[in-house]
Amino acid sequence: MREELVMAGDTTITVIGNLTDDPELRFTPSGAAVAKFRVASTPRFMDRQSGEWKDGEPLFLSCTVWRQAAENVAESLQRGARVIVSGRLRQRSYETREGEKRTVIELEVDEIGPSLRYATAKVQKMSRSGGGGGFGSGGGGGQGGGGNFDDPWATAAPASSGSGSGGGSNFDDEPPF
Amino acid sequence: MREELVMAGDTTITVIGNLTDDPELRFTPSGAAVAKFRVASTPRFMDRQSGEWKDGEPLFLSCTVWRQAAENVAESLQRGARVIVSGRLRQRSYETREGEKRTVIELEVDEIGPSLRYATAKVQKMSRSGGGGGFGSGGGGGQGGGGNFDDPWATAAPASSGSGSGGGSNFDDEPPF
Amino acid sequence: MREELVMAGDTTITVIGNLTDDPELRFTPSGAAVAKFRVASTPRFMDRQSGEWKDGEPLFLSCTVWRQAAENVAESLQRGARVIVSGRLRQRSYETREGEKRTVIELEVDEIGPSLRYATAKVQKMSRSGGGGGFGSGGGGGQGGGGNFDDPWATAAPASSGSGSGGGSNFDDEPPF
Amino acid sequence: MREELVMAGDTTITVIGNLTDDPELRFTPSGAAVAKFRVASTPRFMDRQSGEWKDGEPLFLSCTVWRQAAENVAESLQRGARVIVSGRLRQRSYETREGEKRTVIELEVDEIGPSLRYATAKVQKMSRSGGGGGFGSGGGGGQGGGGNFDDPWATAAPASSGSGSGGGSNFDDEPPF
Repeated sequence: MREELVMAGDTTITVIGNLTDDPELRFTPSGAAVAKFRVASTPRFMDRQSGEWKDGEPLFLSCTVWRQAAENVAESLQRGARVIVSGRLRQRSYETREGEKRTVIELEVDEIGPSLRYATAKVQKMSRSGGGGGFGSGGGGGQGGGGNFDDPWATAAPASSGSGSGGGSNFDDEPPF
Repeated sequence: MREELVMAGDTTITVIGNLTDDPELRFTPSGAAVAKFRVASTPRFMDRQSGEWKDGEPLFLSCTVWRQAAENVAESLQRGARVIVSGRLRQRSYETREGEKRTVIELEVDEIGPSLRYATAKVQKMSRSGGGGGFGSGGGGGQGGGGNFDDPWATAAPASSGSGSGGGSNFDDEPPF
Repeated sequence: MREELVMAGDTTITVIGNLTDDPELRFTPSGAAVAKFRVASTPRFMDRQSGEWKDGEPLFLSCTVWRQAAENVAESLQRGARVIVSGRLRQRSYETREGEKRTVIELEVDEIGPSLRYATAKVQKMSRSGGGGGFGSGGGGGQGGGGNFDDPWATAAPASSGSGSGGGSNFDDEPPF
Repeated sequence: MREELVMAGDTTITVIGNLTDDPELRFTPSGAAVAKFRVASTPRFMDRQSGEWKDGEPLFLSCTVWRQAAENVAESLQRGARVIVSGRLRQRSYETREGEKRTVIELEVDEIGPSLRYATAKVQKMSRSGGGGGFGSGGGGGQGGGGNFDDPWATAAPASSGSGSGGGSNFDDEPPF
């Protein structure tokens, strides 16, 4: 199973924005939960004419979160939710069906939570004895873990679809997105 | 009433940690809500002998949050809650009763939320028509606002004259901590 | 001429890495300097087998810097230089020659400097009376300025030679990359 | 000798400001270089009356940098220099001569460089074969290292002259400030 990697020198970032859709939750064949979602962060700028704040160009960032946090995200957050996301920028290269090479920058999430700026939240602590996926550790605490080199969506290839957690696949640590 | 300031060049920071106590909520004479709390952030280090992660020295950071978010924080978070906090470092000078000058570094919060690493949350969006304090807008959205020069807790001393917040005294915008 | 914008809610980031090439300096028709360059940031991970640090996947980030700083960057930094770059993530959309829509994430630089981790630097302060472009102020100090919505390389318009930097342009505040 | 620690969950931060004094360089008995300095970071705010930017309250942050970078800093930067500093917040507790307990927040530097906003720099790469301190490794590349729990200035012990940097010490890995 995918283990936590000890990483250094990552480019960390905090993004504040809104979910563009409900998070999508999947499980790897080995039972590890992984969720993906996209955050839109809209800066504002002061319009000199009117003296008022106006919206600038939004930044859209695809995010991946693993393990217990993935399940918690899927259960707690819906489309439109304002969130604080902290993680590491990752670059992923892939080929389109036409054989063109593309590169995208995405966010590997370390911590995420709903913003309390315009909302309240009823927080329910999970027991740390493990989530639905049958993988006990849950990360051992602390941020900074969760290094997952191969991007879940790198599997995009036509045949990678497999649903559920059947044993047909060989990459134990590739989510079935 | 305290308005949102347009600031530039602030030192921003994201802290992940746990509340050392329940947040403390107060209102200024003019009705603006302000909450304060302390976050303990504990790094980990890899012990070379045992090959295991151990806790390092925690960092304690005093935080202040204003307006609607202050009320939401007070309603949503309790002692021990793991949070993600994003804000700006502020330095505050004050005098002890003995007349000694002290300086502390604190966090002016822009966004805060409960971490979903080990917890789920039921999020309840507030109508934006205003909070209990009778100040409607709530800031017009976006982070980066909420600049409040004079620290709420600077008022504590009997002789709160401080160089920062100017002369006078009966400021509407000083919280009653 | 392009002015400094007052922005709030930007997604800020600090990247540490090496220049993949010499910076490219250009001037807008109105005389504003703008430089672009790419930074490669390589994280490391601990290899469990060997117990040694190994290089992870590098992150490549295209960066844009304006005005006096652009000229200073072009004069001071060469390919391979290790730098600290602080700025705001920006998303830019463009169309390829084939009419395909693409989106890239880039960095609008607020501050940059050569890292002193493995190098020394002889620093030469510029007089603030203006740079070669004939635009005096230089920003008035402080970071956070320099908002430039339209990306320099977005001007490529019809001839946008996929690779990103092609094309000419006559816009007053569009750099001629 | 002090080794690089593998750390996770640190509170990282980037500060942009000016050195309040020349950096102070010392060597531990074992030959490790360590430099300390203080950075003043001054935010600006928009004055609504005048519509002009004004200086806010500066933030002063004490910084520590180790090994080769310490020597490079001492050689390259002087009082007043504008710098970009990236590192981890650390809390340090000490006792005053009067037996009072104090806590300060300081910055353990990972990377630092002179800002090119108002200055140019002639960068001179050091050979990586080691610095003047006779300690070869120099960190092995990458940021994130350099964890040093015990603060150099914590050694102040009996003679801790309030101001923070006093006191002598004979510890092998304690700098002689």
